[in-house]
Parts: sequence; C-alpha cells; structure tokens
Amino acid sequence: MADDITDTSQTVAAGQLRAFIERIERLEEEKKTISEDIKEVFAEAKGTGFDTKAMRTIIRLRKKDQAERQEEDAILDLYMAALGMV
Amino acid sequence: MADDITDTSQTVAAGQLRAFIERIERLEEEKKTISEDIKEVFAEAKGTGFDTKAMRTIIRLRKKDQAERQEEDAILDLYMAALGMV
Amino acid sequence: MADDITDTSQTVAAGQLRAFIERIERLEEEKKTISEDIKEVFAEAKGTGFDTKAMRTIIRLRKKDQAERQEEDAILDLYMAALGMV
Amino acid sequence: MADDITDTSQTVAAGQLRAFIERIERLEEEKKTISEDIKEVFAEAKGTGFDTKAMRTIIRLRKKDQAERQEEDAILDLYMAALGMV
Repeated sequence: MADDITDTSQTVAAGQLRAFIERIERLEEEKKTISEDIKEVFAEAKGTGFDTKAMRTIIRLRKKDQAERQEEDAILDLYMAALGMV
Repeated sequence: MADDITDTSQTVAAGQLRAFIERIERLEEEKKTISEDIKEVFAEAKGTGFDTKAMRTIIRLRKKDQAERQEEDAILDLYMAALGMV
Repeated sequence: MADDITDTSQTVAAGQLRAFIERIERLEEEKKTISEDIKEVFAEAKGTGFDTKAMRTIIRLRKKDQAERQEEDAILDLYMAALGMV
Repeated sequence: MADDITDTSQTVAAGQLRAFIERIERLEEEKKTISEDIKEVFAEAKGTGFDTKAMRTIIRLRKKDQAERQEEDAILDLYMAALGMV
C-alpha cells in the first residue's frame, strides 16, 4: 500500500490500522451514549419517586430464575440468623 | 392504576416501574452487544497482525490534543531519566 | 541536590521522586498481599462448606445498621411484588 | 456446637461463620487503611510539586523490564507515525 510506514524492521498498514481504530472509536462513542441513556432513565425514575437502589437490585435479580433466587435467599437468611442479624 | 401494589404504607405504580425496568434492561442489552462488537474488532485486528495493547494506548492518546500529549511525555521522560530508567 | 536532573526548563529532585515512588510501591505490595489473604480466607471458608457468595452479601449488609437494612428490604419486597417476582 | 443454627434441612456452624466473616472484615479494614495511605503519599508528592499522573505511569512502567518497555515503545511510535500523530 502507498501509506505503509516502515520503521527499522517493521511495516504497518496505516490505512488498515486507521480503519480499525476508527471503528473502535465509533463503537466506544455509541457505548458512551447508551451509558448516558441508562443514567437518564434512572434519573427519570428517581424524579418520579422510585428508589433507584432497589431498582438496580431488581434488575440484578431478574437475571436469575426464581429457584436460584429462592435458594440464595434461604442461605442468606440462615447466615443472617446465625449471626443474629434478624 | 389498576395494577398498583400496596404494602403497609407504600404504594407502587407497578406498570410504571415495569416500564422503567424494561427500558433499562433493553439499554443494558444494547450496551453489552456493543462491548462484544468492540472485542470482535480487537480480535479481528489481532488476527490481522496488529498489537492490540498498542492500539488501546493509541485510542487513549487520540482523546488528547498533541500539545497535551507532548507535555505529558516531556514530564514522563524527565522522571524516567531521574530514576535511571532510560 | 547532587542528583537533580534538568531537562530544558525543568528540574526534578531525583532522590525525592524515588523516595515517593518506592513508598507507594511498598504500600501497593502490602495491599496486594492483603487482597491475597482475603481470597485465602474465602477459599478456606469455601473448603469448610460455606457459601462465599452469601458471605460476601453478609459482609456488605453488616456495614449497614438494622433499620437501614429493613427499610431497603421493605422497598425491595414491594417492588418484587409489583413485578410478580414473588 | 452449641451455637449451631438449623433451618429446615441446613445447619450452619455459627461460631465458625462469624470467625471467617470477622477475619475478612479485619483484612478489608487493613486494605482500606493502606489505600488511604497510598492516596496520602500521592497527595504529599503533589504538594511537593510532583506530577502524580506521571508518577502513576512510572509505577506501572517499573513493573516491566527495560527490553519489554522498549519493544512496546517501538510499536507505539510506529503506530503513532502511521496515524500522523507525531
């Protein structure tokens, strides 16, 4: 390629490198936008009166099925009882 | 609303809560997809022979302007010289 | 100082810089050792039959007082009921 | 043991659980103290006029040997040249 850069023993395809870098930068930009969107939805929910900490826990719990959640809860309750936390 | 849930003194608008939660889950899903896309571009670049560690450094450096990069480099070179690292 | 390094307009007290760097490196080394100790205690607890995931939750919960925990639980239960998760 | 707690089919050795939890909490407390010490050394270095960002880079670089650093630098310089960043 016309834009190859050579330094001592190495050559780099500049156009190809630039293309990879720019694709990643565009994806990172999109990712950042989505992160901001998520923050905005939480802010909107908070403004409506919802507890965002509980919402985050709910989102985490919804990734597990009910049997898994119940089993984890049972162990946690047992440990809390053992430590006099209830 | 018909689907309001009351527990002791609190009431929650179930439909509204569900809508917020589902919006966030969709956004998190999109974010995860983009993260996987980024990994794939790095994997493709690596497969083509590029050094992905250097690529990550390049992406980080491109967020700064040239004057800022040069100033940071000057300080770093000075410190490396002071510590006998060059 | 005898070991001052000057580069263009800047001078750096090499001995002082080295002392700061070495203090931080020692502290980081200690921190790493403690992180490994924590991992080992968890591994030992796991080997004895304890559920380390529940232990981590317990440790997180013990940082809160009982009133705070109960209030958080009440909201979470309300939200889970609203979403048909119970 | 006298302090065993049984819930349905499970039994937990309360004393042993408490001992594990407290060991971890002590270690986490120590770790937190060291993290604060590290911050203080950086603050002191900053107060003396050192650039803490460059110091962090130095600490990261000192974990690599000189050959490794030079090889990484050579690739980075090549990529920067290819992208017209120099």
